[in-house]
Amino acid sequence: MLMFQNDYSEIAHEAVLQRLVETNYDKVGGYGMDPYCESAKEKIRAAIESPEAEVFFLVGGTQTNQVVIDTVLRPYEGVIAAQSGHVSVHEAGAIEFSGHKVLTLSQHEGKLDAAEVEQLIADFYADGNHEHMVFPGMVYVSHPTECGTLYTKAELAAISAVCRRYEIPLYLDGARLGYALAAKSDLSLADIAKLCDVFYIGGTKVGALCGEAVVFAPGKMPSHFVTSVKQHGALLAKGRVLGVQFDTLFTDGLYERISRNAIVAADRIRAALREKGYRQMFENPTNQIFVVFSNEQCAALGEKVSLSFWEKYDEEHTILRICTSWATKEEDVDALIALL
Amino acid sequence: MLMFQNDYSEIAHEAVLQRLVETNYDKVGGYGMDPYCESAKEKIRAAIESPEAEVFFLVGGTQTNQVVIDTVLRPYEGVIAAQSGHVSVHEAGAIEFSGHKVLTLSQHEGKLDAAEVEQLIADFYADGNHEHMVFPGMVYVSHPTECGTLYTKAELAAISAVCRRYEIPLYLDGARLGYALAAKSDLSLADIAKLCDVFYIGGTKVGALCGEAVVFAPGKMPSHFVTSVKQHGALLAKGRVLGVQFDTLFTDGLYERISRNAIVAADRIRAALREKGYRQMFENPTNQIFVVFSNEQCAALGEKVSLSFWEKYDEEHTILRICTSWATKEEDVDALIALL
Amino acid sequence: MLMFQNDYSEIAHEAVLQRLVETNYDKVGGYGMDPYCESAKEKIRAAIESPEAEVFFLVGGTQTNQVVIDTVLRPYEGVIAAQSGHVSVHEAGAIEFSGHKVLTLSQHEGKLDAAEVEQLIADFYADGNHEHMVFPGMVYVSHPTECGTLYTKAELAAISAVCRRYEIPLYLDGARLGYALAAKSDLSLADIAKLCDVFYIGGTKVGALCGEAVVFAPGKMPSHFVTSVKQHGALLAKGRVLGVQFDTLFTDGLYERISRNAIVAADRIRAALREKGYRQMFENPTNQIFVVFSNEQCAALGEKVSLSFWEKYDEEHTILRICTSWATKEEDVDALIALL
Amino acid sequence: MLMFQNDYSEIAHEAVLQRLVETNYDKVGGYGMDPYCESAKEKIRAAIESPEAEVFFLVGGTQTNQVVIDTVLRPYEGVIAAQSGHVSVHEAGAIEFSGHKVLTLSQHEGKLDAAEVEQLIADFYADGNHEHMVFPGMVYVSHPTECGTLYTKAELAAISAVCRRYEIPLYLDGARLGYALAAKSDLSLADIAKLCDVFYIGGTKVGALCGEAVVFAPGKMPSHFVTSVKQHGALLAKGRVLGVQFDTLFTDGLYERISRNAIVAADRIRAALREKGYRQMFENPTNQIFVVFSNEQCAALGEKVSLSFWEKYDEEHTILRICTSWATKEEDVDALIALL
Repeated sequence: MLMFQNDYSEIAHEAVLQRLVETNYDKVGGYGMDPYCESAKEKIRAAIESPEAEVFFLVGGTQTNQVVIDTVLRPYEGVIAAQSGHVSVHEAGAIEFSGHKVLTLSQHEGKLDAAEVEQLIADFYADGNHEHMVFPGMVYVSHPTECGTLYTKAELAAISAVCRRYEIPLYLDGARLGYALAAKSDLSLADIAKLCDVFYIGGTKVGALCGEAVVFAPGKMPSHFVTSVKQHGALLAKGRVLGVQFDTLFTDGLYERISRNAIVAADRIRAALREKGYRQMFENPTNQIFVVFSNEQCAALGEKVSLSFWEKYDEEHTILRICTSWATKEEDVDALIALL
Repeated sequence: MLMFQNDYSEIAHEAVLQRLVETNYDKVGGYGMDPYCESAKEKIRAAIESPEAEVFFLVGGTQTNQVVIDTVLRPYEGVIAAQSGHVSVHEAGAIEFSGHKVLTLSQHEGKLDAAEVEQLIADFYADGNHEHMVFPGMVYVSHPTECGTLYTKAELAAISAVCRRYEIPLYLDGARLGYALAAKSDLSLADIAKLCDVFYIGGTKVGALCGEAVVFAPGKMPSHFVTSVKQHGALLAKGRVLGVQFDTLFTDGLYERISRNAIVAADRIRAALREKGYRQMFENPTNQIFVVFSNEQCAALGEKVSLSFWEKYDEEHTILRICTSWATKEEDVDALIALL
Repeated sequence: MLMFQNDYSEIAHEAVLQRLVETNYDKVGGYGMDPYCESAKEKIRAAIESPEAEVFFLVGGTQTNQVVIDTVLRPYEGVIAAQSGHVSVHEAGAIEFSGHKVLTLSQHEGKLDAAEVEQLIADFYADGNHEHMVFPGMVYVSHPTECGTLYTKAELAAISAVCRRYEIPLYLDGARLGYALAAKSDLSLADIAKLCDVFYIGGTKVGALCGEAVVFAPGKMPSHFVTSVKQHGALLAKGRVLGVQFDTLFTDGLYERISRNAIVAADRIRAALREKGYRQMFENPTNQIFVVFSNEQCAALGEKVSLSFWEKYDEEHTILRICTSWATKEEDVDALIALL
Repeated sequence: MLMFQNDYSEIAHEAVLQRLVETNYDKVGGYGMDPYCESAKEKIRAAIESPEAEVFFLVGGTQTNQVVIDTVLRPYEGVIAAQSGHVSVHEAGAIEFSGHKVLTLSQHEGKLDAAEVEQLIADFYADGNHEHMVFPGMVYVSHPTECGTLYTKAELAAISAVCRRYEIPLYLDGARLGYALAAKSDLSLADIAKLCDVFYIGGTKVGALCGEAVVFAPGKMPSHFVTSVKQHGALLAKGRVLGVQFDTLFTDGLYERISRNAIVAADRIRAALREKGYRQMFENPTNQIFVVFSNEQCAALGEKVSLSFWEKYDEEHTILRICTSWATKEEDVDALIALL
């Protein structure tokens, strides 16, 4: 059975696992107070070209969104997100669990539009009843988005400008950030670090066994963040497990290099789909491909390859997601293309 | 200055205040354990024709919505509401504060549509990822709605049927319920009690100094509800203050009788508006009237009468709300009509 | 049946009710934006001798504790309180509901000891693991305490000094503050306003129908406090109901004057108890008296007078609470004394 | 530098890491829906002799306590724990964050006493005001405790009997459970499974890279537990990482075997301490040793070996903790003993 259903079907890149094995018996302090975490943070600061940024390692994506959003927002504030955003739909209410509303806006192939963000904020302050409403306290974007699309540098800069005008922090969910960086895009890691107040560099879906690196712009980490992380049940005793992994991923460009594997694979699949006349839902350059199949095709494919159900297209068609990753093998791509 | 800006500009109907004065020095137990509360509950059970219903008095509307929704929902569930619902927009995130998402649907002049409610629930269970999503655990409607519109008996019955099919409680916010009952409508208090699992009879906007009477269908009150109310900071020490008021309002039909005053006044204003060619936004028979005025008219009116801003209609027009109440005087209606 | 079971068995002082009746039909704005609230705030500022203090009216005591503690604390902080404190024991977990731990210290007849408060804070910061613990973020005292005892000026000043040394706000729960001010005590309202960062002047137990006046020292009210109050379900639509009451209570010294009635009554009862050889649990000068009765006495008294159970003293004795109030009548005191 | 400061200074037992490396490229489903998790659950059910028990893997200890306690308790309930319990002191308020009070009892070398638990519950229901208090909804014990002590079978059975009498679930925190099972104790894993409603088998401190296995007695797992875990930000995408580890630890008795290494090492150190006349604080048979050192000894030791500060004993003495683990080497024990 071929598997293209997601980008977390393997454990970790072998270099990452190898490094865990090599450093296994080094005795170090707990809770992220160890030389591996320090080294990883240093490398991330270099990669994002922000020597004063603060970095903190967490375990998973929903956890990271919950902790960041809850600790950055004031209690009476909510977070603006696209209606399709991960925090809006697929986190089982983790944001509301911590007391905050998700203020949704229309999505444009998964993206927010700067003008619409500004309108929402302006309308809020223009509303005579706004003291009885949830204050917009943060803007959440994901890059790549749920649709695999990317913000251009201009698009993210426009949202960032709105945020700064209203002094509202901009937060970028980079669960699949590696695939954005490896794809055709004019938005660099350093740009993101400049435009956002906080973002995370996803590890779980990009070669790590688990782990996400949260980056706060200089001075933007909430005070006593460690305590808040612990309070959310999110502090890993063996913080070094995260440090070792990110240290490895940010050595010699491994993170982007292994991400590129996913893009090369996805590009080959996209070309084959185009050639064979399939309809792709979004023009996107990353590792997720959303394709309209007839229900018969779905059934036939389902016997040979595992894909994700996305949504019904119409009575006779279904949208499935093909997902590549750092671990996708060329021969599996060949096999998939042969099946299409 | 004329005031038609809301329905809570006075303190209370004089019979209500009078009764508070008369019973002032009767020494009774606290926290709602007193004969006034018992008597009021008995009268409400009679009025709704549900002798086994359980009644609990709370102080205000947002508080009631927060307490009811939080205690009825399981922690991983959210409440379905119209995008324009009070719980969605105008409660400063009180529902999210208690950990629950508001799952919004389109509004139709403030109302939910039964078919859309069913679709949302069916889509949820059909979604392969629904265990990563917020479970729909309750349906919230208001009657009258934010737009002053009313559900017909058939409409509410249809929503109720969906709720029962999926075993999801139906909750009706009756902040202005008196005005619904006094208006032209085929939906009686007894109907509401039969179709809903929980609803509240609003006092604050209908003649009481403060207070809302929450009614649970037989067996539907959450266990240890008093403790939960206390935990939410919502238990009034002098519960009898609420009991005395509702006992008065439900004696000799006072609640509906004083509500009718608002409807008579509103109907006169509506007729005058129609005659003078104003555009009214919604066809609604209750005590709120939403009217399109030119910005010049707004400015002129603003010097003589206090109305509520509703929203911008276009660059040159604004929608204002005219609101009547149990206390609206005939001569003020005359004066208002003369100004239009 | 005589009733000395609590201080909230009547509705309100007649002057308060009278004023509600008189102002009933004045049409004013909602949510505390009205001239009565403004006037009441002005009078309170004068009474506490703090012209820049900010005042906000809430409905009840537990609600006030929850709202104040939750909005003043940072999310990772807890509140220090006596083990017997109302917030520790009798609020059904309202503080924890809003996410905060109550950090308990031993009580000394209901009071905290400044040295012990300092020790707790110093120990916290000295603990190498304190980042994994709840930060002490506020000190909560009540005055009178649960035992009816009072802080001396020196005692409260000592706690205040500790708080200021560590930059931790001091919060005083004045649910029965009137009875403290009317009793023999060297601690004035102006002292309290100087020593505390926030406190409340209780209305519910001192002549109001409902209502507590929260006072923040200049500049100490949390930003967007109205929104937070709304989010907690605690914003009263008819805020004027609270304003009118406090305006009346703070006109011509009514608040202290009616409080004195309770003290006079309690002092007579205390004297009678002493004379008849009963054991009183605490030396306290306020309106609560805790008396050891034999179980037979309890049974006999129970037929004629309603008192509160406090706790078992030993197998054969029980502690009951006798509570007087602003409304206690001289003849009822005579009758009670005759029964003892 | 010797390190005896905790039991999580290495990453994982080499067999565990080895198995992760071997299974790295097997493509499996996410979120714990994979054959490794299934196999691990089967082995745990066999080890605890409860074929119908339900097992769920989480990442860390505080997270596990928060998720279990919050999902098992009703919202108005709190958890009974020793004053020294991890949930009481060292989880930064994670239990209160989810809305629940920790109801503390005295600790007896870290343990709860069944009679005191019963007294607390009986007192609660006997209290006339208990509806204004936090309901005791669960009993939390840890085994080993914070002091390294163990419950005897009779002691835990007594607590379990109280819990069943009052229908309150008993929860055992087994962060270091391996060290309890490997130590001299009459309480087996099967006993624990019979006496508790829910408990967890700690991985993080006993050979796993991360991970705790939560075991619910048959029928006791909260409904939609996956959704609640997700809502708490605690659902690991690569659930198999936990499954593979527990599958390895529960193959051929590895979990107990490696735990024994810690006990053998600790027993040698205890014997040496006794022989040299040191005072040990608790008689305990597990992997933590609490020793009184003079401050000079502390300073001298501190240059050669890393231990944990426990607390001040008196002005001239300090209690330090010596901690062994599955990874402790014989030569390090020799070196430590030589230093004493």
